[in-house]
Amino acid sequence: MSRLRVHSFAISLDGYGAGPDQTIDHPLGVRGEELHEWIFETRFWSEMTGEPGGKEGVDHDFLVAGFTGIGAWIMGRNMFGPVRGEWGDSDWRGWWGDNPPYHQSVFVLTHHPHDPIAMDGGTTFHFITDGIESALEQATAAAGGADIRLGGGVATIQEYLRAGLVDDLHVAIVPRLLGDGERLFDRLGEAVDGYECAELVASDAVVHLRMVPKR
Amino acid sequence: MSRLRVHSFAISLDGYGAGPDQTIDHPLGVRGEELHEWIFETRFWSEMTGEPGGKEGVDHDFLVAGFTGIGAWIMGRNMFGPVRGEWGDSDWRGWWGDNPPYHQSVFVLTHHPHDPIAMDGGTTFHFITDGIESALEQATAAAGGADIRLGGGVATIQEYLRAGLVDDLHVAIVPRLLGDGERLFDRLGEAVDGYECAELVASDAVVHLRMVPKR
Repeated sequence: MSRLRVHSFAISLDGYGAGPDQTIDHPLGVRGEELHEWIFETRFWSEMTGEPGGKEGVDHDFLVAGFTGIGAWIMGRNMFGPVRGEWGDSDWRGWWGDNPPYHQSVFVLTHHPHDPIAMDGGTTFHFITDGIESALEQATAAAGGADIRLGGGVATIQEYLRAGLVDDLHVAIVPRLLGDGERLFDRLGEAVDGYECAELVASDAVVHLRMVPKR
Repeated sequence: MSRLRVHSFAISLDGYGAGPDQTIDHPLGVRGEELHEWIFETRFWSEMTGEPGGKEGVDHDFLVAGFTGIGAWIMGRNMFGPVRGEWGDSDWRGWWGDNPPYHQSVFVLTHHPHDPIAMDGGTTFHFITDGIESALEQATAAAGGADIRLGGGVATIQEYLRAGLVDDLHVAIVPRLLGDGERLFDRLGEAVDGYECAELVASDAVVHLRMVPKR
């Protein structure tokens, strides 16, 4: 059965998965980029960007795991782009250029209908307006037996957590204080009682922690 | 110069240093005791309680470090006891029995005057009503050149952090979700910009993380 997995979702020591005031210049909000610096050091990142170098090790391994066995993606609209409200005549096609790193179907949660966008390299963005369960059903069908990766942002992950639909939640705690932003582990209601720690390991940059449903 | 140090302060994955609804039966609030289970497994705890056994290792080492080079303690009133408001005719003498584990002067922050309480084993509780700077001055004098350990609770540590007076902050992140309580890294204002990570290491139970003032 397909599992819904969150990987390498970075949060600050004070719990923020994104800084405040997301804009086109700051897709992760003010200071939100600091949450991703550990990624840029890895061989995973070098390979993705075609740059030489990059470190192997725990951080690299976790990043690779997040792309292993995945057949479709789900993400919130804010992870797709900075447009809010109606799409209008926006020609926004995601943050990732012509050839996004997904190479499969990506289901974008939105309240506003939008035609699918086929990109180079096999990525197609589908826009889902009838809720998280529907998105999961469609992603499951598209994944063909593989798992589904749930991207961000914070609000999207919280929705799936509250619904008890997340099968594996890997966060990377970045040892910095942001002071403001969107907290991941917040407003989860009774979902907090449903998860337990399955893995805990620190690199020299971040703490990797996996939460899974209690058996 | 004496340094003000926080040690082994446990917070949950969702950031809570204590659960909600502190009472005499739940000094750390509902579910707050879960934050301390990692301590009970250590040789440090065995030695303190006179029980046999207990594990050595990272957790043990961090707990020992918290009692090394310390000449006085400061703590908030809620860490001292469950009494609120005026002391009245309360004969409360702390959570720790006749022989508390401090064996030195402990300065308790309160808005309500109380005579000092001398306990067995060298611990004396002094009650400080004129603020955190005064408590720090008196603790520094009592420490005779050694460092001062700052206990809890959350509100007390936040006060000293906001004032920029904490020289070393060691937290242990417990990989559990409490869902409610008092968040440590919250309402810190500009203090969040003043600290950086000095140490990051995981045991099989918790993550140890030390924050120190930026140089």
